Amino acid sequence: MIVVMKKGAPADAVQEMAARVEELGMKAHVIVGTERTVVAAVGRESEADRQTLSSYPDVEQVVAILAPYKIASLETKPEPTVVRAGSLTIGGGIVGVIAGPCSVEGPEHIIEAAKLVKAAGATALRGGAFKPRTSPYSFQGLKEDGLKMLAAARDETGLAVVTEVMSPQDVPLVAKYADVLQVGARNMQNYTLLEAVGESRTPVLLKRGPSATAEEFLLAAEYILNRGNSNVILCERGIRTFESHTRFTLPLAMVPYLKERTHLPVVVDPSHGTGVASLVPSMCLAAIAAGADGLAIEVHQNPPKAMSDGPQSLTPAIFADTMKRCRKIADAVGMTLGG
Amino acid sequence: MIVVMKKGAPADAVQEMAARVEELGMKAHVIVGTERTVVAAVGRESEADRQTLSSYPDVEQVVAILAPYKIASLETKPEPTVVRAGSLTIGGGIVGVIAGPCSVEGPEHIIEAAKLVKAAGATALRGGAFKPRTSPYSFQGLKEDGLKMLAAARDETGLAVVTEVMSPQDVPLVAKYADVLQVGARNMQNYTLLEAVGESRTPVLLKRGPSATAEEFLLAAEYILNRGNSNVILCERGIRTFESHTRFTLPLAMVPYLKERTHLPVVVDPSHGTGVASLVPSMCLAAIAAGADGLAIEVHQNPPKAMSDGPQSLTPAIFADTMKRCRKIADAVGMTLGG
Amino acid sequence: MIVVMKKGAPADAVQEMAARVEELGMKAHVIVGTERTVVAAVGRESEADRQTLSSYPDVEQVVAILAPYKIASLETKPEPTVVRAGSLTIGGGIVGVIAGPCSVEGPEHIIEAAKLVKAAGATALRGGAFKPRTSPYSFQGLKEDGLKMLAAARDETGLAVVTEVMSPQDVPLVAKYADVLQVGARNMQNYTLLEAVGESRTPVLLKRGPSATAEEFLLAAEYILNRGNSNVILCERGIRTFESHTRFTLPLAMVPYLKERTHLPVVVDPSHGTGVASLVPSMCLAAIAAGADGLAIEVHQNPPKAMSDGPQSLTPAIFADTMKRCRKIADAVGMTLGG
Amino acid sequence: MIVVMKKGAPADAVQEMAARVEELGMKAHVIVGTERTVVAAVGRESEADRQTLSSYPDVEQVVAILAPYKIASLETKPEPTVVRAGSLTIGGGIVGVIAGPCSVEGPEHIIEAAKLVKAAGATALRGGAFKPRTSPYSFQGLKEDGLKMLAAARDETGLAVVTEVMSPQDVPLVAKYADVLQVGARNMQNYTLLEAVGESRTPVLLKRGPSATAEEFLLAAEYILNRGNSNVILCERGIRTFESHTRFTLPLAMVPYLKERTHLPVVVDPSHGTGVASLVPSMCLAAIAAGADGLAIEVHQNPPKAMSDGPQSLTPAIFADTMKRCRKIADAVGMTLGG
Repeated sequence: MIVVMKKGAPADAVQEMAARVEELGMKAHVIVGTERTVVAAVGRESEADRQTLSSYPDVEQVVAILAPYKIASLETKPEPTVVRAGSLTIGGGIVGVIAGPCSVEGPEHIIEAAKLVKAAGATALRGGAFKPRTSPYSFQGLKEDGLKMLAAARDETGLAVVTEVMSPQDVPLVAKYADVLQVGARNMQNYTLLEAVGESRTPVLLKRGPSATAEEFLLAAEYILNRGNSNVILCERGIRTFESHTRFTLPLAMVPYLKERTHLPVVVDPSHGTGVASLVPSMCLAAIAAGADGLAIEVHQNPPKAMSDGPQSLTPAIFADTMKRCRKIADAVGMTLGG
Repeated sequence: MIVVMKKGAPADAVQEMAARVEELGMKAHVIVGTERTVVAAVGRESEADRQTLSSYPDVEQVVAILAPYKIASLETKPEPTVVRAGSLTIGGGIVGVIAGPCSVEGPEHIIEAAKLVKAAGATALRGGAFKPRTSPYSFQGLKEDGLKMLAAARDETGLAVVTEVMSPQDVPLVAKYADVLQVGARNMQNYTLLEAVGESRTPVLLKRGPSATAEEFLLAAEYILNRGNSNVILCERGIRTFESHTRFTLPLAMVPYLKERTHLPVVVDPSHGTGVASLVPSMCLAAIAAGADGLAIEVHQNPPKAMSDGPQSLTPAIFADTMKRCRKIADAVGMTLGG
Repeated sequence: MIVVMKKGAPADAVQEMAARVEELGMKAHVIVGTERTVVAAVGRESEADRQTLSSYPDVEQVVAILAPYKIASLETKPEPTVVRAGSLTIGGGIVGVIAGPCSVEGPEHIIEAAKLVKAAGATALRGGAFKPRTSPYSFQGLKEDGLKMLAAARDETGLAVVTEVMSPQDVPLVAKYADVLQVGARNMQNYTLLEAVGESRTPVLLKRGPSATAEEFLLAAEYILNRGNSNVILCERGIRTFESHTRFTLPLAMVPYLKERTHLPVVVDPSHGTGVASLVPSMCLAAIAAGADGLAIEVHQNPPKAMSDGPQSLTPAIFADTMKRCRKIADAVGMTLGG
Repeated sequence: MIVVMKKGAPADAVQEMAARVEELGMKAHVIVGTERTVVAAVGRESEADRQTLSSYPDVEQVVAILAPYKIASLETKPEPTVVRAGSLTIGGGIVGVIAGPCSVEGPEHIIEAAKLVKAAGATALRGGAFKPRTSPYSFQGLKEDGLKMLAAARDETGLAVVTEVMSPQDVPLVAKYADVLQVGARNMQNYTLLEAVGESRTPVLLKRGPSATAEEFLLAAEYILNRGNSNVILCERGIRTFESHTRFTLPLAMVPYLKERTHLPVVVDPSHGTGVASLVPSMCLAAIAAGADGLAIEVHQNPPKAMSDGPQSLTPAIFADTMKRCRKIADAVGMTLGG
């Protein structure tokens, strides 16, 4: 860490700082400049120590040097993690395709959806049984009944099931039916939930929170990894910005950025990332071109009849066409779509 | 709701839309303009219906007219809600002052902190026993031990205790010790937690999520109200923007904005809202001038020794001075500080 | 426009509103709902009228229905505009490639740069002679000398020259040397400059301001089009968000979004859009996959020696490799790279 | 500056960096840590040098230590700058009040407006003659005629005139009539304009750009100061964030933040900062409580008839009432409203 003292900080404040740095287990180097004195603190860093050093009145700023996540870091594990869950492979040159309706709506409906997305090239089925909804008056999902329908759809089609879990106490229940546990964007910093899925051995799809920094996203993954679950898939699904013509802003540069720092695979969700069905196909192509290891896409047989997220859902026909175009992009970047 | 059809939408698409609007229980008025046709849908609105109508291919946009929250609305209950919890009153012309350390650090520490903030004018004690931390490697709080220390500090000083609950299953435990349950910003859309505190009868301090819109904030409150807990305090604590000289951006216009729409009292947290101790006193004054019903302020005996949030914690001396200045502002706007 | 009256707005306020709508030349339809009355205003819309109607005390909100730009709209001109300027073609299935250093640094340097980027596949040369710099103490460009060097590089290589103009009075000077006038992001709403380039007949590359909405971006183009210059190229170059791991956030969904609304070609600048050289190649590929009509890329012979923007400049070797990969993506989406 | 090398950067890359640092006129200190090597560069800093050092492939990040603005800095001039322009004083314990319509609409209108705002307590008259408008089809102002009307209003009331200049070539014309030149938010980084007003000796009100950082804002002021005009007033007028219930987000913590760094006075514009007239009075009070040296407020005799910005304009009656409440807040913080 680099501690920048305020202009005119007295010599004893600098000495006290150097002593505190050593007390915290780092080695202190005092560098006296013409306008500022800097204390370089060498050794293990932590956010707690950064806050401590920032709290001294003669300190202007403290700059962290080391990444605060460890297990997620490419420096800890240089080879990319490949996550496999039934029919779904994500990473290692395979672009996994997770597709399906926003919500599970009924037994025939989800089986039909599974068949349609599988025929078009999906390698996993998505569908929400527990639904986090902005309004308490919106449809909240079919809960365990929905999980059973998903499992039936897997039995029928062979597609792995990706579905959300919203609460620590529901983890065992959802893990009983799901191949991949999804942690939603609103829960990215729900630490008791992260710990609970970290205790599970089912792979986890972790969605980026809409105002999470890259570092916070990786630290959320670290919570899961730190509990022993090493199968974490990162999912970029858009951030909240001033743009209002899309539901969220999809920052695709996150894909190569994450790949420079972590071994975990990165999936992109252009459905939530744009909120507008007509923009989804282009963003699927762009995500693969950017290096994504997978896509998560909302598809519905009849979007105006969807119980949720109709405006951003592709029809099966458009989804099938998008898959064809994605395959060409995957070929162009040396990846395999679906596997 | 107003459904704007795309330019050139065929007449039968307009008819289908009008029929669907009626089917959903609203009355449809078709207005044919020179460039666009609009279908006005009159009656009860829901987000689900808005999504449904948005999903038709010939629809350009659907604009909601009515607020999606009901119980929180000033239209439902025009008189302001006053929340009382032991020594703390928030609303009704009383500016409540919740102060104390970020984390409970030990039994003597929290009792000393409680005495200091009480002497300076605080009417409630804050302190975290369950701590949501960005990194799994940071101090996670003293948990139930911390709750007991808070209760002891209340016994000693008479100050009401405000403390965070992070998980639905911890609600009964925290409610056993706390006078006010705090739902943190990261959990503002943790709906299972909102429902759990809604089932409780302990007042709730709900912090705005850093990327939550005003509507999402009020809908989160609605989750709690809808379960029967009517004592909800809204807390603005800063949003995430491009500004990096402060930890968050504190949008004080939210205070009068909320008061135009809801009867719930509004508290401001300038400690998290700026993240910089030297900016906190000015923002306390500004918050009261803007009409806030209360303040939540981090105070620590020795910020560089704090286990968390030292950089944004006031010393007891600066807190006491800030309270004196706040009292003058409260007088100037016809409010009473502390009560 | 849709005028939503406040709950309980008196009947005469509704009547006054309807009368005012008619007075402004629109036809008023009053729709009385259970909770709100709405006045639909049918006919020509303007932002001025929207503001006027919003100013009445009994009005809750006014929603615009029609796009405020006209000449830029796809409804006005359904066939895509192709911009040609010397060696550069943008649009009509051709992906133009504008490459070169941030600043013109000297006569040999820019000629060498031009040769290198041409050899790798660029179809135009970029380079700043007038440089808008955040600090008054930074290098401000070689001004007219720089323009002459650019012209010499064009003579030598045949590459069209794209360069920035910062001030209305410099437009004739820059237009004397340049094939395309660039209006920088900081000047996107510098209306006297927009009008000045609108009076010119040299094509214009208009960069999106870092906090401009899609509508403001198209209205800035409209300023140019409205003065008679129909050769406007839109350039997405990143927006300002809370993300700090990149210099800006590059929102590629803007590409298909704009193409649904305007006939103007859309170029992407991944150099400014990320600010990080290692992320630029992936974003070039993603931009083409998303449907961009061109790329603007900073390339420098030796980035650590660059007079500006070294951290985001590609070396010629990496640029050449990126072009090879871009060609494959262009093929995959049925476009031609460079032409 | 602190140069953080990448993990595993070879020794000769570190040596090359140290040599480059010295070559740029700074002194290099190499600090070898367990995970990273850091090169501390001591001496004068510049953004150009920071970019240069960031461009080396073995560099992870470069952190600036010193503020890039000099003349604007409190370190350069510790005593606050007080700006006086006719009837207007800003700073030194006086809260200046600039009020009036968005646009000059006609000779009687502006004189009446001037009389009304003066009677209520304003110490300067605002009004736009050159209007930057998002749409080319909106009213663009009365230009020189408008300036003459403003001057006549000054003659009649004695109020100093604050009005916008949009183009370098208009500076002499506007300065002929105005007491204070306003540089609008959209032009905050229009450097040729900043230089032109810097050459003038008329005081300048510089509005923060809606996506400008604090540092960029102060560097824009530095452009003006650097040309010899020392009478610069900073104006916070709101930033662009995801919040859409207000036109912009008004970040009042900028007031104390700027005051810790610069001697320049700071004014707040709650009219643009919220865009909603009903929120303006509270934000006036909050701005003064936060320590602002002045207010800029839009007031119109009849907002629904205003040629621009009606929705955010106060009526004279509400403005007068707001002034009374502001006076109490100014008293409470030891300032004098208006002077």
